[in-house]
Amino acid sequence: MKKPVRVILLGAGRAGSFHSTTLRVSPAFEAVAVVDQDADRARTLAASLGCAWKTDPTEAFDTLDADAVIVATTTHTHTRFAQEALSRRYHVFCEKPLGELDDVRDCYRLARDADRALMVAFQRRFDPEFNALRTRIGEATPQLVKLTSRDSPIPSEAYLKTSGGIVKDCMVHDIDIANWVMGGSETHRVPVRVSAVGYAHHPDLKAWGEFEGVVVTMQYENGSLAVIDVSRTCNYGYDQRVEAFGSFGMLQLDNRRESAVIAHTGEGVVSAKPLYSFPQRYPDAYRLELEHFAAVVQGDAACRILESQVIATEHICEAIERAIETGASQPVTQEP
Amino acid sequence: MKKPVRVILLGAGRAGSFHSTTLRVSPAFEAVAVVDQDADRARTLAASLGCAWKTDPTEAFDTLDADAVIVATTTHTHTRFAQEALSRRYHVFCEKPLGELDDVRDCYRLARDADRALMVAFQRRFDPEFNALRTRIGEATPQLVKLTSRDSPIPSEAYLKTSGGIVKDCMVHDIDIANWVMGGSETHRVPVRVSAVGYAHHPDLKAWGEFEGVVVTMQYENGSLAVIDVSRTCNYGYDQRVEAFGSFGMLQLDNRRESAVIAHTGEGVVSAKPLYSFPQRYPDAYRLELEHFAAVVQGDAACRILESQVIATEHICEAIERAIETGASQPVTQEP
Amino acid sequence: MKKPVRVILLGAGRAGSFHSTTLRVSPAFEAVAVVDQDADRARTLAASLGCAWKTDPTEAFDTLDADAVIVATTTHTHTRFAQEALSRRYHVFCEKPLGELDDVRDCYRLARDADRALMVAFQRRFDPEFNALRTRIGEATPQLVKLTSRDSPIPSEAYLKTSGGIVKDCMVHDIDIANWVMGGSETHRVPVRVSAVGYAHHPDLKAWGEFEGVVVTMQYENGSLAVIDVSRTCNYGYDQRVEAFGSFGMLQLDNRRESAVIAHTGEGVVSAKPLYSFPQRYPDAYRLELEHFAAVVQGDAACRILESQVIATEHICEAIERAIETGASQPVTQEP
Amino acid sequence: MKKPVRVILLGAGRAGSFHSTTLRVSPAFEAVAVVDQDADRARTLAASLGCAWKTDPTEAFDTLDADAVIVATTTHTHTRFAQEALSRRYHVFCEKPLGELDDVRDCYRLARDADRALMVAFQRRFDPEFNALRTRIGEATPQLVKLTSRDSPIPSEAYLKTSGGIVKDCMVHDIDIANWVMGGSETHRVPVRVSAVGYAHHPDLKAWGEFEGVVVTMQYENGSLAVIDVSRTCNYGYDQRVEAFGSFGMLQLDNRRESAVIAHTGEGVVSAKPLYSFPQRYPDAYRLELEHFAAVVQGDAACRILESQVIATEHICEAIERAIETGASQPVTQEP
Repeated sequence: MKKPVRVILLGAGRAGSFHSTTLRVSPAFEAVAVVDQDADRARTLAASLGCAWKTDPTEAFDTLDADAVIVATTTHTHTRFAQEALSRRYHVFCEKPLGELDDVRDCYRLARDADRALMVAFQRRFDPEFNALRTRIGEATPQLVKLTSRDSPIPSEAYLKTSGGIVKDCMVHDIDIANWVMGGSETHRVPVRVSAVGYAHHPDLKAWGEFEGVVVTMQYENGSLAVIDVSRTCNYGYDQRVEAFGSFGMLQLDNRRESAVIAHTGEGVVSAKPLYSFPQRYPDAYRLELEHFAAVVQGDAACRILESQVIATEHICEAIERAIETGASQPVTQEP
Repeated sequence: MKKPVRVILLGAGRAGSFHSTTLRVSPAFEAVAVVDQDADRARTLAASLGCAWKTDPTEAFDTLDADAVIVATTTHTHTRFAQEALSRRYHVFCEKPLGELDDVRDCYRLARDADRALMVAFQRRFDPEFNALRTRIGEATPQLVKLTSRDSPIPSEAYLKTSGGIVKDCMVHDIDIANWVMGGSETHRVPVRVSAVGYAHHPDLKAWGEFEGVVVTMQYENGSLAVIDVSRTCNYGYDQRVEAFGSFGMLQLDNRRESAVIAHTGEGVVSAKPLYSFPQRYPDAYRLELEHFAAVVQGDAACRILESQVIATEHICEAIERAIETGASQPVTQEP
Repeated sequence: MKKPVRVILLGAGRAGSFHSTTLRVSPAFEAVAVVDQDADRARTLAASLGCAWKTDPTEAFDTLDADAVIVATTTHTHTRFAQEALSRRYHVFCEKPLGELDDVRDCYRLARDADRALMVAFQRRFDPEFNALRTRIGEATPQLVKLTSRDSPIPSEAYLKTSGGIVKDCMVHDIDIANWVMGGSETHRVPVRVSAVGYAHHPDLKAWGEFEGVVVTMQYENGSLAVIDVSRTCNYGYDQRVEAFGSFGMLQLDNRRESAVIAHTGEGVVSAKPLYSFPQRYPDAYRLELEHFAAVVQGDAACRILESQVIATEHICEAIERAIETGASQPVTQEP
Repeated sequence: MKKPVRVILLGAGRAGSFHSTTLRVSPAFEAVAVVDQDADRARTLAASLGCAWKTDPTEAFDTLDADAVIVATTTHTHTRFAQEALSRRYHVFCEKPLGELDDVRDCYRLARDADRALMVAFQRRFDPEFNALRTRIGEATPQLVKLTSRDSPIPSEAYLKTSGGIVKDCMVHDIDIANWVMGGSETHRVPVRVSAVGYAHHPDLKAWGEFEGVVVTMQYENGSLAVIDVSRTCNYGYDQRVEAFGSFGMLQLDNRRESAVIAHTGEGVVSAKPLYSFPQRYPDAYRLELEHFAAVVQGDAACRILESQVIATEHICEAIERAIETGASQPVTQEP
C-alpha cells in the first residue's frame, strides 16, 4: 500500500465536515491538521480526526509537514487559498467554484509550474449512480439530455447573498454532468449556444431578488440539445434525475429513495421519497472524489476533472446568466 | 365474415350483464333472447340488446331459433340448464362451476353425443395480461409459482351461504391458472398433493363461519410447487399477482392500476391503486372468452378449456378442502 | 335514452377507421353513410358499419338525412368540408387542424350562425390518463410543466410534405395539453412568449429537410414555464409523459405499457415497453371525444374544446415556428 | 465519547472479514488481535487493522487485554469458543448458529453467571430496510407475511456438508424476521405449527442430496400465517423480499438494486438487478449489528436479540425439518 496522503483540511464548516468523514475512514489519507478561523470548530473537528488544529492558514502552510490541502472555506476565499497552497507546492483539492475565469487560469498555471495536482470538486462525476448512467451511454450520442435538480430547504438570505446566484451555485453541477453525459466517445462536449428563463413564485425568494427556478436549453454543435431545470424548492426530497434520449433508446437515472418499502393502502401505492438533500444523496460521491484526488496525488490516476472543463463550465454559466438577463439566446465562448 | 352465433342469454344478473356487453359490441354474436325468471330484468337487458325476452328457459330452448346458450344463472342451476340446453343440441357456454364431478362428466358426455361445444368460463385464461405471462414462460418449467388473489368488498352472508366456500368460489381460478402457468410444454399440469390452512380475522366472516383467507401449497410430480393465497378482504383494490420462479429467472405479473399518475409529495411517491374489483379488472377477459367460444362454435378453434382440466380442478378443490379440515396434506385424485 | 346522432363519416382512411370503431359500438351514434373518393375504401368501411356509402361529399351532404358530419379527410381539405357541412347546418366534428387562423374563425362563425356544434379533435383531452392527471392538479398552479411526446415509425416523405411540419402536426397536441395542465382554476392558460430549437440526426429526415425533434420553452404571464420535447423517432414505443412541478410537489403521468409482466433475469429487471404508437395508446380517447361530441350535439354538454383555445394553439404554433427560424424567443399573439 | 470496546476477532475468513471492515471504521471498537489457525490469514487481516495476531484462541483469551470476542469461526466451533470466551468473562458476539438447543442454553447461562453480553448475529434485524418495514407495521397485526430469500451462487459441496442444511443455514434468518414482522405490539411472535416441502431441480444439489428450495407455512396462535420460500439458486441477484398483508393494507419490502439507471429499449424497460449476494446487500446491517453489540457492552442498549428468540428459532427449524421429512405438519415446541 502507498503511503497515505498527508493533508491539511482548510475549513471546518459543512464541506469540511463531509471531507473529514472520508479522512477518518480512508486509508489513503492521513489528516495532519484542521484549519479554521473559528478555533472551536477547528479544535472539535481535529479531535474527531486525532490531528492538530490551527486558525491561521498561512502559518499552517508554512509550518506543517503535509502533501496536500483541501480548500473547503467560504466561496470567495477559494482562489486565494488555492493560490497560496499551490505556491508552497501543496497539491490542492478545492470546492467549486475555484474562482472567476482569470483566477481559474492562474491557479492551473501555478499548479503546472509547481508540478502539483489541482482538482476542483465536481462530486457528481464520482457518484456511482451517475457513473452507471455514463457507462451505459458509452460512445453513443444522445440527441437530447434532460436533467432535473431540485433541492430544499431554501438557503438563508445570508447564504444566498454570497452564493453567486442559482446558476453558479446550483446549475453548475448539472451543466458539468450534461456535458459529460453528452460526451459520446469524448469525455466532455461543450455547447455552442444557450437560452434560459428564470422564475420565482416563492415569496421569500421573490423578495430577496433570487430565482427559485431556472430552465436552460443548451445547443451542441452536432445539433444535440440539453435541457436543465433547477429549483431551490422541492417538497418531496432531493430530486436528481437525468434522461438521455437518442437512437439507442432512453436511459434514465432515477432518484435514490429513503427505503425500499412500498405501502399499498386505500390511498394508493406509496413508495419512499427521494433522499432528503445532498448530504444524504452524495456521501459516496464525496468520498470517491477525494479518493480519486489521492490517486492523482500518488500518481496512480490522471485527474478526471480537467482545466478545460472547469473553464468551459464557467463560460457556460456566464452565457446562461446573459441569456436570462437579455431574454435572448447567447453564444458560449469557446476556448481554442 | 362468418355468420354470427345466435345466442340465448340465460340469466340477466351480474354475469349476464357482463356477457351482454360483449353481445352488444361483438360482430361474432347475435343476441336472440334474454331469459330470466325476473321479467323486468329480462326485459331491460333485452331492450339494451334489441332482442326478445322470456322468463321460462325450457320454453325458450324449445321455441327460439338459436345456436348457443350462455348459462349465467345462479350457481346451483348451472348443471341443470347446461344439460337441458345440450340435450336440445345447443352449444353451451357455462359460468363456473359446471357442477359436481358427476355432473361435469355428464354434461361433457351430452356435449359429445350431441356434437356440440361445451365451454366452462375460466375467464382469466383469456386475460391479455395472464396470456402475456404464459407466453413468456413458454416451455420453461417453473420451480415455484406464487399466486395472490385478494378481493373486496366482502360478499353478503346470503351470497356466501350459496357460494360453495372460498376454495370453490374464489381459489378455483387461481388453481386453474397455477396449473396452466406450471404447464411448461404441456398446457396444464396437475398437482399430486396439497396442503392448506385457512383463517378468519374479520368479525363478520368469523361469525358466519367463513374463511377470510386460505393459503395452499400444491406439489407437482416433478417437485415443483405452487403457493396460492386468497383473501375475501383487501383495502387497496383487487390484488391479482403471479410470480413464476425457476432457472430462467423470475416472471411476475403485476396488477393493473387505476391510472398511470404518480404523485410525489411530502408523504412519499404515490402511484395509483390496483383496479377496484373483478368487473374493473377483467372486462377484456370476459369479452375474449366469449369470442373464443364463438370461434369454437364456428369450428375455427379448439376449445382451450378442456374437460380434463375442469375435472382436475374439481379434484384439487376437494383435496384442498380436506386438507384444511384435517390439517394434513392430501393426495389429489388423478384421473387416468 | 336519447335518439342516436345520425352521422356522415367523411374519409375512410386512418382517422375515419378509428372513428368507425366508435360508431360501431356506441349507442350514441347511428352511421348514415361513409364518404370517400376511393369507392372501395368507402364501400368496405360502410359494410362494416351496415350503412350507405358515397364518393361525393357535396352530394352526400345534399341528399342524406343526418345530423352531423365527421371530417376525417386529408389535412388540407378540413376547412372546406367543415365549411360546407356547417353551411348545410350539420354539426361538425373535425380532425385537427381545422385550418389557418382565418379559416378557424370563419368556421366558428358559420357554426354560430347555423346554431350548430363545431368540435376540433384534441383527443388527448379525453384520455382517461390525462384526465386523471388534470383532476389531481385541480386548482393548483404548476411552476413547471414538462411534456414528452416521442413517436415512431417515421412517416413517409409523402405524408411529411403535407403534414404542416412537426410543430403543427405533432406538438400541437402537447401545446394544448400544456395549456390545459397549466390552467389551475381556469381551464386553460396561454403562454406569452416561446423559445424553440429543432434538430435532425436521422439521415432521412435530414435529407427531407424535416425536423426530427423540437424542444420548446413556453413562458406564462405568472412566471410558470412549460417545456415540451417532441420526436419523430423513438425505438422503445410511444413515449407520452407529463410532469407537473410546483409547491404541491410533482405529478407525473407515466406511459401505459404493453403488459404488466416483469421479467427478472441475468440482464436486469425488464418490464414491458410503452404501447407501440397512438392507435394503441389512445383508443379510449378517440371513443370518448366522439361521445363528448354526441353529448354536445344532444345538448347534454358544453363543448370542452373552445374556439379561443383552438385559436390560441394556432398562435402558439406560429410563434414557435418563428422562434425556430430566427433563433430568438418570440411573443405569442394574444387575442383580446 | 465512551472508551472503545477492545475486541478479539476470532476467525479471519469470510465473516471475520466483514466484521473487520466495521472494526476499521467504527470509533466504537478497538481491534486488539485477530486470531486464526491459519497464520497467514491472521497476519494479513491483523495488518489491515493495525493490531496483533495469534493462531491459538485459548492463548489469546488468556494473554490479551480485551473486553469482547467476536466469534466468526466455522459453524461447529461456535459453541466451544463462545463458552471459552464467556468463561473468561469476555462479552461475546457470535455468528449464528450458536449451537444446538442445549448449547444455546448453556452459553446464555454462562453469560448470565459472568454478567457478560452474549449476542447472536441476526444481521437482518439491523438492516435499515427491514427496520423501515418493521417501523411501518408498528402495532398492526399482519394476517399473512410472505418472505422470499433466494441466493446464489450455489455453495461448494464441502460447505454444504457442514452447513447444517438449508433450513438452519438459510431459512433461519427468514424465520427470525417473520416472527419479528408478525410481532405487532410485541417484539416477536412464535408460530405454533409448521408445514413444509422441499425440492431440488438443480442436478448438483440433487446429486449431493441437498434441497434447492424449501417452502414453509407457519401458523400463529391468532390465526395469522407466514409463508417463506428460500432457494439456493437465483440467476437475477439476491432476492430478499417481504410482504405483510392485513386490514391495514399491504406493506412490501422490495430488493435494493445495483443502480437507479433505467434503460428503455426495443426489448423493454430495463432496470437494474437486485444486488449480487449478501455481502453486497447487507454491509450496513453487518456494521449496525456490531455497533449495537458495542452499545450493549457499554451498557447503552438492551440486546435486541433475546435468548428466547434464539431458542424459539431453533425449535422452529427442528419442526420444519420434521415437517419436510414426514410430509405432515408439525407442532412447534413452546418454551414456557
